[in-house]
Amino acid sequence: MESSLLNEMVEAFKCLPGVGARTAQRMSFHLLERDREAGLRLASAMQQAIDKIGHCQLCRTLTEHEFCKICSNTGRDSSKLCIVESPSDVIALEQATDYRGHYFVLMGKLSPLDGVGPEQLGLDLLENRFETGEIKELILATNPTIEGEVTAHYIHQLAGKHDISATRIAHGVPIGGELDYVDSGTLSHAFDGRRAY
Amino acid sequence: MESSLLNEMVEAFKCLPGVGARTAQRMSFHLLERDREAGLRLASAMQQAIDKIGHCQLCRTLTEHEFCKICSNTGRDSSKLCIVESPSDVIALEQATDYRGHYFVLMGKLSPLDGVGPEQLGLDLLENRFETGEIKELILATNPTIEGEVTAHYIHQLAGKHDISATRIAHGVPIGGELDYVDSGTLSHAFDGRRAY
Ligand SMILES: [Zn+2]
Ligand SMILES: [Zn+2]
Repeated sequence: MESSLLNEMVEAFKCLPGVGARTAQRMSFHLLERDREAGLRLASAMQQAIDKIGHCQLCRTLTEHEFCKICSNTGRDSSKLCIVESPSDVIALEQATDYRGHYFVLMGKLSPLDGVGPEQLGLDLLENRFETGEIKELILATNPTIEGEVTAHYIHQLAGKHDISATRIAHGVPIGGELDYVDSGTLSHAFDGRRAY
Repeated sequence: MESSLLNEMVEAFKCLPGVGARTAQRMSFHLLERDREAGLRLASAMQQAIDKIGHCQLCRTLTEHEFCKICSNTGRDSSKLCIVESPSDVIALEQATDYRGHYFVLMGKLSPLDGVGPEQLGLDLLENRFETGEIKELILATNPTIEGEVTAHYIHQLAGKHDISATRIAHGVPIGGELDYVDSGTLSHAFDGRRAY
């Protein structure tokens, strides 16, 4: 390539998910040829966010404050706690449902082989919360993957020790989906989970 | 969204080509949750590149030096000059062909309605180069769009004034392509440009 600075920029863009060599090149040229101002704005926004965003002291989601907006919202139902793997799950649930309880964001899932145990997921923090006696329903909304199920199972047991009842979100064929387009894992799960009609 | 800094980062990512709201969110979470170091490296590479990369004084391509690597390379054939619209075209041609001449990068195409005339494309710089008498073949490799064709035509006439012969790269059905998958403009061009078999 013509320029080593350009080369470094193209290489650096490849750290983004779904960005290969060709897309990285297209992004770099776009910024340099057409929108340098937006490029500088993006670089600065990235630095600011990476520098200042940490985790909510209560629910572990990403925030630049001590407590996130949802945890700080006294209008929400503090008897319900929904367990999710990541901050984007919170956004998805907030957009799709009218749930008005609280969340706990694991920032991952149990994965012993990758060195992710209960401690890495902040489950001590979660247990402190169980001990307050405030939580009446725990909603397990981890992903329907093997690790997500193991994580849900582990937290379910933890909740049981504190006599907190837990529910698991339903999994199956997506609404509007067609059976033969759904992956076999989902289909088998949907079949096993069949209910009286 | 939970955090205003996160929000700004997500918004800023949308300046990249092909990046909508969902992808911008995914990129932001990826960097914050999984690779902050790479995010800082990317931000710094962007700032460095945008700050230091300008245009080659001879061919107008992007470079942080006065003259780009190709223009500085005395081993290349300076009797051949290939006209392209953008730096990425140079990379594509360098990778695909064994062309060893020089380039002139328009950084755009004639587009009077958008205020892009001969001056904006540096055609005065190009004419200076014609005047040296060094160039024997001009290869017009602008894109086969209406504006690309108009630009090629204009430069062809400019070259004619200096008795420099110009060629145009061939356009038609891509090798390995099938007629019924090619857009009608290309097909019509390929048909009109048919040669003796
Ligand atoms: Zn929180
Ligand atoms: Zn150059």
